[in-house]
Amino acid sequence: MNSDVNANHNGIEILTTGDELVEGRLIDSNSGWMSNGLFEAGMRVVRHTSVGDDRTQLTCALLEAASRSAAVLVSGGLGPTTDDLTAEVAAEAFGRKLVLFQEALDHVRAAFARMGRTMTENNEKQAWLPEGSILIKNMRGTATGFCLEKGPCRLYFMPGVPRELQGMFEHFVLPDLEKRLSKRALRIAALKTMGLGESKVGALLQDLQAPAPGKLLIQYRAASPEVHVRLVLSGYERWEREGDEVLERLVGEARHRLGGAIFSEGDENLPAALIRRLRAAQRTVSVAESCTGGMVGAELTATPGASEVFLGGVMAYDNRVKETVLGVAPDLLGEHGAVSQEVAEAMARGVRLRLGTDFGLSVTGVAGPGGGTEAKPVGTVWIALADSDGVSARKVFFPGERERIRRYSAWSVLDLLRRRLEGTI
Amino acid sequence: MNSDVNANHNGIEILTTGDELVEGRLIDSNSGWMSNGLFEAGMRVVRHTSVGDDRTQLTCALLEAASRSAAVLVSGGLGPTTDDLTAEVAAEAFGRKLVLFQEALDHVRAAFARMGRTMTENNEKQAWLPEGSILIKNMRGTATGFCLEKGPCRLYFMPGVPRELQGMFEHFVLPDLEKRLSKRALRIAALKTMGLGESKVGALLQDLQAPAPGKLLIQYRAASPEVHVRLVLSGYERWEREGDEVLERLVGEARHRLGGAIFSEGDENLPAALIRRLRAAQRTVSVAESCTGGMVGAELTATPGASEVFLGGVMAYDNRVKETVLGVAPDLLGEHGAVSQEVAEAMARGVRLRLGTDFGLSVTGVAGPGGGTEAKPVGTVWIALADSDGVSARKVFFPGERERIRRYSAWSVLDLLRRRLEGTI
Repeated sequence: MNSDVNANHNGIEILTTGDELVEGRLIDSNSGWMSNGLFEAGMRVVRHTSVGDDRTQLTCALLEAASRSAAVLVSGGLGPTTDDLTAEVAAEAFGRKLVLFQEALDHVRAAFARMGRTMTENNEKQAWLPEGSILIKNMRGTATGFCLEKGPCRLYFMPGVPRELQGMFEHFVLPDLEKRLSKRALRIAALKTMGLGESKVGALLQDLQAPAPGKLLIQYRAASPEVHVRLVLSGYERWEREGDEVLERLVGEARHRLGGAIFSEGDENLPAALIRRLRAAQRTVSVAESCTGGMVGAELTATPGASEVFLGGVMAYDNRVKETVLGVAPDLLGEHGAVSQEVAEAMARGVRLRLGTDFGLSVTGVAGPGGGTEAKPVGTVWIALADSDGVSARKVFFPGERERIRRYSAWSVLDLLRRRLEGTI
Repeated sequence: MNSDVNANHNGIEILTTGDELVEGRLIDSNSGWMSNGLFEAGMRVVRHTSVGDDRTQLTCALLEAASRSAAVLVSGGLGPTTDDLTAEVAAEAFGRKLVLFQEALDHVRAAFARMGRTMTENNEKQAWLPEGSILIKNMRGTATGFCLEKGPCRLYFMPGVPRELQGMFEHFVLPDLEKRLSKRALRIAALKTMGLGESKVGALLQDLQAPAPGKLLIQYRAASPEVHVRLVLSGYERWEREGDEVLERLVGEARHRLGGAIFSEGDENLPAALIRRLRAAQRTVSVAESCTGGMVGAELTATPGASEVFLGGVMAYDNRVKETVLGVAPDLLGEHGAVSQEVAEAMARGVRLRLGTDFGLSVTGVAGPGGGTEAKPVGTVWIALADSDGVSARKVFFPGERERIRRYSAWSVLDLLRRRLEGTI
C-alpha cells in the first residue's frame, strides 16, 4: 500500500452526482451499497464524493478523483435531460470527443420498444459517449454505462437509479476491478443477534483474537434492535486452508459466547429467520397486537412463504376488540388495565384459540407519547406466548420514541417465539 | 456568486468521517439531513465528502475543503476511542495546539453524572480541542463540538450520532451560518400527492412559471407511492410582499391542477393525514388485511392519537381466517378466489360489522413472488371500502417486488378512504 500523502494508488473512490443529493432531497444509498460489495471483495474504498448537476463541480471532482485513485465509480447524470451532464463533462475533462455509439443507440431503441413507448429525440443523447469508452450494458433501463481510462485510473460511469446501477456493478464493474486491482484476502463471517444490545455483544467478543499471522477485525452494524456482527479475518492468502480453519474456530468461539442470541448467520432478518424455523418445524402462528397495531404481522408477511405458517391475527388496538374478537374478559381489562400480564396472556390464548394455530403471540404496551402513568410509564410493554402447554408472559421496557418502542416490542415477541422453538427458553 | 474554477466562496461543504461509511456498513444520512436544512434556509451546499478513520485521508479532505469553501460542516470522530481522530487531525492540519478546555471537561463530567456512569480516563480526551476553538454545546451526549476558522473558511465539528449532530446544527451551526453567509431569499411551499405518479404530476405542473423577476423551481421528492412536490420561488427579497403573493398564486394554481391528489401541505405522510381527517370528522375505521398482513394497521398506528379513530382489524392472511373471523362465505372464496371483488367486499363489510366502526377497509392481492396466474398475475390487488351506504371495491395493479406491491396496496386503500372523506369519490 502506498503512503504518499493523498495518493491512493490501489484505492477506489465513489462519485455520485445530482442536485437532489447536495440539496438533501435524496439520501445517497448507492455509495454505501457499492462500498459494502467492494469491502467484501477485499478492496478498499477511500472516499465518497457527491456534487450537484454543475459543470464546474463535476469537472473538478472527476479530475481530482482520477488523479488520486486507481478507480472511480461514478453514478448519475446519464439520463436524457439537459441536467444530465456526466458523459459530456467526462469527455471534456479527459480530452475526448463525444461520439455516437451505434450499439448504445440500438440498446436505447430496444429498451423503448420493450416498454411499448416511443423514443423521443433527446433519448438519442444517451448514445453519445466519450470516444474510446467501453460500453457497460444496462439490462434494466435505457441509459448505457461506460468505462474509460485516464492514465493509471479506470473510471466507471453508471446511472443513478439503484436497480440499474446494481445490475451494472455486479455484472461488469466488480468483476473488472477484481481482475485489475490487488485485493486483500479477507475471510468474512456474519452473525446476527437479538436481545443483548450492542455494548453487551461488544463486551462478550472484545478479547477475541486470531493467532498470528492472522488478524481479526470485529465490526458491528446497527439494525436496531438486531445487532449484526461481522468477523473479518485477514493475514492468510485465499488458498490457505489454515485461514479457513482459524475463521471457523473464531466463529465457533463467538457462537459459544453469544449463545442463544444468534438468530442467523445469513442475510435474513429476525422475522425471516423465524418464518424459516416455523416452516422447518411445521408449526403455525397467529398474533394479537395492541400497541404495534399490525407491525408483527406486517414484518412476518414480508417474507415470501410466510403463508405456510402465519395464518393471521387480530389488531386489537381498542379494548372493545380485545373483548369481542379475542375474548379477553372485561374484568381483566377493568382490574389490571390493557397493559398487564393478565391481558397479554389472555390475548395470546385468545388469538391462538380463535385462529387454531400452534402458537399465539401478543403485544400490549404504552408506545407514547401520551398514555404513560407513574406505574406504567411510556415504554412499558407486555409480550406473551401461548402454546398447547399454556401461556407465559414477559414485561419489557424500551426507552425512546413511539416508533422505536413499537419496533422493539414487535422484535421482542418474535424473539420470544424463536427462542421457544430453539428450546433455549 | 463566484465562478472561479473550483472555488466556492459562498458555498458550503459537508465532510463525514468513519470507516463504517466508506466500508458501506452505514449509509450517511447526516449529509442529506443538513443539506436539506441549509437549502431551505437559502444556502448552497456544493459538495459532500466521506472518508474513513484515516489520518492522511482526513487531513487532505479537511485542507481541500477549507481552501475551497466558505464553510465546512464536519461530522464524526469526536468520541473517546483511538479511532476518533478528528480533533487531533484538525489541530495538526491547521497548525493549532490541542489544549484542554475546562468547560468541555466539565460538560463530559456532567453528562456522565447525569447518566449515573463513571467517567473513564479516555473520556477526558473529548475535552482536548484545537486552541482557539469556539465550543459548540451538545445537549444530547458527551462529545463537545467546536468551531474554528482557517482564513475565510469557518469549520464546524460535530459528532456523528444523528440526534447529537441535529441538536448542534439547529442551535449553533445554522444560526451562525445565517449571520455570516449571504443567502438567497427562497419562498418554499410543499404539496404532497397520492395517486397520480411522478411523471403525471410533472406533466400537470411543467408549464407553471412565476412572472418576472420571480423564478420558480419545481422539485420532486420520491416517497413512493407518495409524490412530494416543492415549489421554490426565488427572485424576491425576503421582505417583499409581492413574493408572498406570487407564491400564493402559484400554489393555488398547482392545487387546482393536482386537485384531489393533494393530501397534505405539511410534514405528515398519507396515513397521518388520514388519521387527522378521521379525527376531525369523528369517524372510526377498521381494516381487514390479507396480502399486506398488518401493514395498513401498523402505518395508521404510527401516528399518535390513532386510537381515537382506529379500533383495530383482522390480519386475514389465511382463507380460514377470512371465513371464521370475518364471516366471508366459503362459497365466495371457492368460486371467485381470495383475490376477487367479491371477497374484498365481504372482508370490508365483515370487519366493519365485527368491529362496529363507521368504515371498514380491506386489501387482498397477489404480492408474489409466487402465487400469480395468467388471470391474476403477481401485482393484482383488490381493495374495498365499506360504510353505512354499502361497499365499493377497486382493482389495482402494481408491478415490481413483493414489498413494493404490499406498500402500494396499503397506500391505495388508505387513499380510497381519504378521498371518500373529502367527498371526491
